[in-house]
Amino acid sequence: MINAAREVFIEQGYDGATVRAIAGRAGVDAAMVNHWFGGKEGLFGEAVLKLPFNPQDIVEILVAVPADRVGDTIVRTFLSRWDASGGGVFTALMRSVTSHDEAAAMLRDFFLKFIFKQVIGTFSPDHHDLRATLIATQIVGLGMVRYVARFEPLASADVDTLAVAIAPTLQRYINGTIT
Amino acid sequence: MINAAREVFIEQGYDGATVRAIAGRAGVDAAMVNHWFGGKEGLFGEAVLKLPFNPQDIVEILVAVPADRVGDTIVRTFLSRWDASGGGVFTALMRSVTSHDEAAAMLRDFFLKFIFKQVIGTFSPDHHDLRATLIATQIVGLGMVRYVARFEPLASADVDTLAVAIAPTLQRYINGTIT
Repeated sequence: MINAAREVFIEQGYDGATVRAIAGRAGVDAAMVNHWFGGKEGLFGEAVLKLPFNPQDIVEILVAVPADRVGDTIVRTFLSRWDASGGGVFTALMRSVTSHDEAAAMLRDFFLKFIFKQVIGTFSPDHHDLRATLIATQIVGLGMVRYVARFEPLASADVDTLAVAIAPTLQRYINGTIT
Repeated sequence: MINAAREVFIEQGYDGATVRAIAGRAGVDAAMVNHWFGGKEGLFGEAVLKLPFNPQDIVEILVAVPADRVGDTIVRTFLSRWDASGGGVFTALMRSVTSHDEAAAMLRDFFLKFIFKQVIGTFSPDHHDLRATLIATQIVGLGMVRYVARFEPLASADVDTLAVAIAPTLQRYINGTIT
């Protein structure tokens, strides 16, 4: 199932791939795929990105908080999920992105069209696409410095310290002044 | 010369390598190395990181601006240097960092002990090491999103747009409230 999904995503890209095509490749029922993997997004997160969480769960957490808490919630949610996997999963993801153009393209489609589109759509007043990519710079950079380059003291800092330091950045990218 | 430098940096690490050892390996005079490559830092930037600029020049630009302009200057200086190389040099650097632990360790020593130590030492009131690594998260993430993952519209945004959006983040990490 995971292999079939990975093949179809690589052949068709994130937008072009359908649950029907993946289920067909794996010889299973499409309704089963939706039920067990949380649809196309969950399957993509598990098969291609090997994320240590279901992306839909993250979206539901983020859109449920008050508008002035979403920056803080993003930092805490991402760090708690990635820290739990020891950072190896994030490093593997970045290695894939820096080595393969198609991995970078799929990650782009996935983050911008799925995760951040819903968060930005809920909280941001304008410049939705620019704000989404600004958020990505801070999140990707946080992961690179904490898990890949392991610059201290940030690599060992506790989540509270990083949430206080970084949340205002994300909060401004979401609904503050950026132009 | 470049090969000799790369060998010595990999064997000894950034801290352990000396201009004398590199010059000896290459069979040249140490004074020549200092003159032509700007010392150990310049040689490291050229031999190992393949930077499209001399790190000492960047430091001199940054420490010369007024304290409230340094965030803006960092964004403009880094983008103009990396943009000029088409982003390929940054991608190669990140590929190296995600693939080799020793590359990550050398990058860490170089940025924290050379570039940011001088900038932070000039402008920051406290928490020097944490501030340095926070700056690194935003700079590395900006490069990852603009040059490697190429998320639009940020990948094609002009330098002025990104300076306005991102400079306040760096300014706060340098001398604003982070705790």
